[in-house]
Amino acid sequence: MAQKDGQNYAPRAANAQPVCQKGDFRFSVVGLTHGHIYGMTQNLLDAGGEVVGVFDPDPAKVEKFRQAFPAVQSADCEERILDDAGIQMIATADIPAFRGPLGLRVLGAGKHFFTDKAPFTTLKQLAEARRKVEQTGLLWAVCYTERLQSEAAGYAEQLIASGAIGRVVQVIGLGPHRVNAPTREPYFFKIEEYGGILCDVGSHQVEQFLFFAGCKDAEVVHSKVANFHHPDHPGLEDFGDANLLGDNGASNYFRVDWLTPEGLSTWGDGRTFILGTEGYIELRKYVDVAREATADHVYWVDAEGEHYFNAAGQVGFPYFGRLILDVLSGTRNAMPQEHAFKAAELALQAQAHAIRVK
Amino acid sequence: MAQKDGQNYAPRAANAQPVCQKGDFRFSVVGLTHGHIYGMTQNLLDAGGEVVGVFDPDPAKVEKFRQAFPAVQSADCEERILDDAGIQMIATADIPAFRGPLGLRVLGAGKHFFTDKAPFTTLKQLAEARRKVEQTGLLWAVCYTERLQSEAAGYAEQLIASGAIGRVVQVIGLGPHRVNAPTREPYFFKIEEYGGILCDVGSHQVEQFLFFAGCKDAEVVHSKVANFHHPDHPGLEDFGDANLLGDNGASNYFRVDWLTPEGLSTWGDGRTFILGTEGYIELRKYVDVAREATADHVYWVDAEGEHYFNAAGQVGFPYFGRLILDVLSGTRNAMPQEHAFKAAELALQAQAHAIRVK
Repeated sequence: MAQKDGQNYAPRAANAQPVCQKGDFRFSVVGLTHGHIYGMTQNLLDAGGEVVGVFDPDPAKVEKFRQAFPAVQSADCEERILDDAGIQMIATADIPAFRGPLGLRVLGAGKHFFTDKAPFTTLKQLAEARRKVEQTGLLWAVCYTERLQSEAAGYAEQLIASGAIGRVVQVIGLGPHRVNAPTREPYFFKIEEYGGILCDVGSHQVEQFLFFAGCKDAEVVHSKVANFHHPDHPGLEDFGDANLLGDNGASNYFRVDWLTPEGLSTWGDGRTFILGTEGYIELRKYVDVAREATADHVYWVDAEGEHYFNAAGQVGFPYFGRLILDVLSGTRNAMPQEHAFKAAELALQAQAHAIRVK
Repeated sequence: MAQKDGQNYAPRAANAQPVCQKGDFRFSVVGLTHGHIYGMTQNLLDAGGEVVGVFDPDPAKVEKFRQAFPAVQSADCEERILDDAGIQMIATADIPAFRGPLGLRVLGAGKHFFTDKAPFTTLKQLAEARRKVEQTGLLWAVCYTERLQSEAAGYAEQLIASGAIGRVVQVIGLGPHRVNAPTREPYFFKIEEYGGILCDVGSHQVEQFLFFAGCKDAEVVHSKVANFHHPDHPGLEDFGDANLLGDNGASNYFRVDWLTPEGLSTWGDGRTFILGTEGYIELRKYVDVAREATADHVYWVDAEGEHYFNAAGQVGFPYFGRLILDVLSGTRNAMPQEHAFKAAELALQAQAHAIRVK
């Protein structure tokens, strides 16, 4: 069910190698609201990290987390973790609206911050984060899981870098998700807490566009949101889309929704279409409908022919090792800070300017 | 090559049945510039029609057409065909800019008109056509081949009608085409003759949106065009996209392009994604990349599961028989006149308002 509902979707790279010695990189966790924290934690462990402490106000969440990671010590309050001189980073998958303020406290305590996406629910939070990063030089890393924990996406990165499809001129992203309303945390239906569908799941899509198309900035030229099918949850937006124009002429369209039908074998039929001047790539990230109930299907067409590659177990999630090395060495190879912030900014702008339809 | 380059793409339904007696429905052809005329003619013949005459100023095109349809008589001028009291309809795949004026002459001569898409290259032509139809009561039928000659699209129509995916809230269309620049007619590179990429191949996409989503009207909320990869052909737009909002709340995004790489086994990897509140449909119309070099692949997911159906030979092209019966009986079942015009209108608006990127 965890796979099918997606709430604890925590893909783990098959071939991760530690990038450091045991004890070199120690982190703790504050805020367990979203199951993404399991993938974030596991992939840091697989890359050589060590998880030290955990705090969440809900003891049941802490207990479940400790079952998954028995070495972790539970803390009786957030301050205990902020004050721990033995850790370099604090990770969170708290309610989205709380992530920005938590990050300010984490950097204020001299530690790097690693947050589930969406990192912010307001542009004010983002502005404060930019200032804090500038002041401290610490990392405000964002786990955009739909690329960073997708081996299909990692393989697309390699294909693009090899020149297989020429200049990338467009990225289309489809990000459908299963709603599973009865099992969701209350924040999921409060727009002031999750920030709106474009802010929340849309941020994955913007990040992928900026990354695959190599844009540093973009303009939101159209966006919309709707609640088509969940009248009992007026705070939910179950549909959103946006059209962006990148600073290098590449464009982006994405649709996100909470309309995944019950019959799908997984939580969402996530797709990415990357159009180049010499070819194109399609990612069927989590399922190949009616063909394969498995992940990481990469299709592409170039001058030579039509190609297929199953990237599962072949690419890994190099982001996590790079992130650890960035912390240990002061490098910034995992993801440029401004890229992480820009994706959030554009998702927030798309949300703010969205027309509402019904 | 005809299949791979798409210029003479003329799919023929496997199971067509005549809807009338021989001689009941007789039509002629004026204007052979685009190979679509072969599919239009063949499918009318398969539905019981009889092709009588042909005129094109280029004798080579006429000769080739007569080889395909030996019963047809070549005429020495257009007037000979307009004046033929023995035909009910004139079909054309002339240069797009000439189709509107030809239609005025055809209706003026008391005959129904059947044109390849795009039917118009200016809103003025469309306004004149609307007036002429109102005055005469004759048909101005438009062959939007990417739906009307697609059994996958016909099967999607059935699925939607059955309620399989609930209320349709979005349609995404991808319409890539292979450019084959050396073999193209000169008009292909003259925007004043083909009307721009959104007007031309975009009209297919708008038509499918209006049809599948059940909209009577829509607003173009964003559109753009570009020439990314053909600097030697400045009159070509090789990329275009548009975002429409329908009058019933359903939305549409489509991308059309002339960037199909050489390695694709057919002329374009046309896709349609139809999102409903209870499920979704994906059409892989002309190829299932790296899986099947055949057409009419229908995938859908509903409450019950993930499904696949190969519609080739299963659905036919009912449009052509209905069109003949509309002519013979005065009904309007093949396609509402206003739907055909509205699709063209919105494509023209998308073209007119498009921002140009590079």
